[in-house]
Amino acid sequence: MSDYIKVTLDESEIPTQWYNIIPDLSEPPPPPLHPGTHQPIGPDDLAPLFPMGLILQEVSQDSYIDIPGPVMDVYKRWRPSPLYRARALEKALDTPAKIFYKYEGGSPAGSHKPNTAVAQAYYNAQEGVTKLTTETGAGQWGSALAFACAQFGLECEVWQVAISFDQKPYRKTMMETWGATVHSSPSNLTEAGRKILAMDPNSPGSLGIAISEAVEAAVGDESTKYALGSVLSHVLLHQTVIGEEALLQLAKVGETPDLLVGCTGGGSNFAGLSFPFLREKMAGKMNPTVRCVEPASCPSLTKGEFRYDFGDTIGMTPLVKMHTLGHDFVPDPIHAGGLRYHGMSPLVSHIYELGLVEAEAINQTECFAAGVQFARTEGILPAPEPTHALAAAVREAKRCKETGEEKVILTALCGHGHFDLTAYEAYLSGRLVDYDYPDEKVAAAMKNVPVVAG
Amino acid sequence: MSDYIKVTLDESEIPTQWYNIIPDLSEPPPPPLHPGTHQPIGPDDLAPLFPMGLILQEVSQDSYIDIPGPVMDVYKRWRPSPLYRARALEKALDTPAKIFYKYEGGSPAGSHKPNTAVAQAYYNAQEGVTKLTTETGAGQWGSALAFACAQFGLECEVWQVAISFDQKPYRKTMMETWGATVHSSPSNLTEAGRKILAMDPNSPGSLGIAISEAVEAAVGDESTKYALGSVLSHVLLHQTVIGEEALLQLAKVGETPDLLVGCTGGGSNFAGLSFPFLREKMAGKMNPTVRCVEPASCPSLTKGEFRYDFGDTIGMTPLVKMHTLGHDFVPDPIHAGGLRYHGMSPLVSHIYELGLVEAEAINQTECFAAGVQFARTEGILPAPEPTHALAAAVREAKRCKETGEEKVILTALCGHGHFDLTAYEAYLSGRLVDYDYPDEKVAAAMKNVPVVAG
Repeated sequence: MSDYIKVTLDESEIPTQWYNIIPDLSEPPPPPLHPGTHQPIGPDDLAPLFPMGLILQEVSQDSYIDIPGPVMDVYKRWRPSPLYRARALEKALDTPAKIFYKYEGGSPAGSHKPNTAVAQAYYNAQEGVTKLTTETGAGQWGSALAFACAQFGLECEVWQVAISFDQKPYRKTMMETWGATVHSSPSNLTEAGRKILAMDPNSPGSLGIAISEAVEAAVGDESTKYALGSVLSHVLLHQTVIGEEALLQLAKVGETPDLLVGCTGGGSNFAGLSFPFLREKMAGKMNPTVRCVEPASCPSLTKGEFRYDFGDTIGMTPLVKMHTLGHDFVPDPIHAGGLRYHGMSPLVSHIYELGLVEAEAINQTECFAAGVQFARTEGILPAPEPTHALAAAVREAKRCKETGEEKVILTALCGHGHFDLTAYEAYLSGRLVDYDYPDEKVAAAMKNVPVVAG
Repeated sequence: MSDYIKVTLDESEIPTQWYNIIPDLSEPPPPPLHPGTHQPIGPDDLAPLFPMGLILQEVSQDSYIDIPGPVMDVYKRWRPSPLYRARALEKALDTPAKIFYKYEGGSPAGSHKPNTAVAQAYYNAQEGVTKLTTETGAGQWGSALAFACAQFGLECEVWQVAISFDQKPYRKTMMETWGATVHSSPSNLTEAGRKILAMDPNSPGSLGIAISEAVEAAVGDESTKYALGSVLSHVLLHQTVIGEEALLQLAKVGETPDLLVGCTGGGSNFAGLSFPFLREKMAGKMNPTVRCVEPASCPSLTKGEFRYDFGDTIGMTPLVKMHTLGHDFVPDPIHAGGLRYHGMSPLVSHIYELGLVEAEAINQTECFAAGVQFARTEGILPAPEPTHALAAAVREAKRCKETGEEKVILTALCGHGHFDLTAYEAYLSGRLVDYDYPDEKVAAAMKNVPVVAG
């Protein structure tokens, strides 16, 4: 195995359980609060939006949850995903470091998102739900849910942020090919959408508005539920198949990671890779540094505050304790749309507070430079989001060149960039810009965060 | 293994040799002829365009040719490719047939084309060539060669058909991300291009014109050669890794194919899948029906004549004996750009004449219907080209439902459709049309085919 390029597993080696990190933590994450009463919410409060199967996972104290057979059968279409040794990139960097990447772009939708979309569609179908609603920005999550709904015979209705709906028609067609209905948001199909359109008929939309529309469309109908692609604990849970497989794969080639780097937007890709390794770290079996990488334009961990805030822009969701830049913070228009979120998963935020992980923020031009170098060496054209993790890996590999350290670096390449080529075009033609650190915008947005005891 | 979805192989099971079918045939294919003298051409005639390593493969009488180590190292990025059992599609069709598909869309460029692009880049680099030129229509081949050149440090210059250059800017950016230079063809960089532009400054271009430009750019410079993505025997040779792997994979699950179906444009994908199975068939070890599937708008095998004609539109190439619709036949604008070629690989044509394979032609609306059904069941969104093979597989599976036959059907899913979503949009919105059989156009074009003895 000394000259391997990738480490593959057999279908029979797909993990049979998702890993729930919560019981292993020294203290539990703070509970979500009702936006009106500021009291902890219970499963019943979430029932209009989610099926009980997912709500019970959201609050579960079990360390492991079995992956149902029908979910496993869909996972088998692209799982186990390959773990690559980036030998060509290492050579180009002339580094003694060993760089590994776990590639999730081989899924039908092209990212890690189907790992949870398939599970969510399954549990909804099990409870008699016939339709799921959701929002999507650039389209990765909407695509994943459209694919998953087609697998379980569910209708799928997607509100896509208007500016993305207009600029990325291919993602819309992809969702429609899988049978989904896609609306430009704000739409005149919901009260929330009509309100926004009344104020601004040409509104470009936002993820916050699209969430409001998808939620409104779900709560009015018993057989319709809502699905979220990141942030919540059950979403992070489903992604742990990534890290469980990577653990097996590194063991097969006798390597133990010194550093994990993953990009963080809502946190699900990062959590999926890192939680199983954090379990091993907490058990004293290995001791990797685990690093979140976020865009300098949307630095929720490195610049945000850890406090209760709304998950959406308009303030309809429960209050969750997380690293936030303020729920009405609008990030600069960087190309990594999946990282343009004002908050951070409460569970990742909590783990960061516990000191289990660290964070750094990187500007997009450095990320695209790493992405192009990666494409020319390793071949795969990465999505803009994971170029943040690649840039961090390149930084570390260059440090290793100086120090001579043979660090083992593991990163998650969570999706391909086939629908992001306008961003590469902007980079290659020199039109891609960086933005100043948004300190003033953050300070302004933080003033609107509700004051909650605790 | 009874409930498997896909059959995977380990890196160590990638075939170590390409299979050359020519020595196993009852008679050799007719030789290419010099366009002026009509005498058989030799290796030296091809030397201005191709490196000797590839020319020797073109005329080789060896049954097996070793895959060089550096080529194997690049193959390992996505090979062995998975073989899928299409259980969800079978269920939707309620057929007793077993449908298998070999998926090549996991390569960095998204199709089977890198199997030969990598080999071609390697042999050129070995002989000191520093730049490759080529043409591309929709962009699959240009992308594959750009990726391959990046792997071996070669410059890559691509002439992309103007209409495609304008309509598919993402493919261009993909090639540029891998470091290639891309020109719209006709360009004012070559005499051929300037001639065309003088006649029509707004020429939409054609594959024939782009070939002329790429060839002209190569022959003028000692360190520059030309690369072709299909048609030639050495290209088909490199693709046989597909079929060799599929043989191993079917054997692992104890299945023997009754029918192979593959789409045919230039013939390389079809040959790659089928030649190793034809070897087994000729040796009496199995007896599958092997069927080429071509677009009804460009039916070179089912409607063309088997005779000497030019490989390009303008008449610069050697004369090759093949099934042709006439070198100036212009196919209707179907979306499967990779199948819009007036001829067919001489080797596939020869094998068809020997009666080893059969052919059928299918209209594009039936193909896209199969493609959408495939996407909604199997998840993967296919490129327009392999939807022809899928449509043929669906036809056969429906016949099996009527007869009760449990046929084992094997097909090649040679690429994904991430850059073809405008075609899906046209289909889903009801704007996709079929064309009449082009009998009159073929008759007219055949009048311009040169008369050659033999």
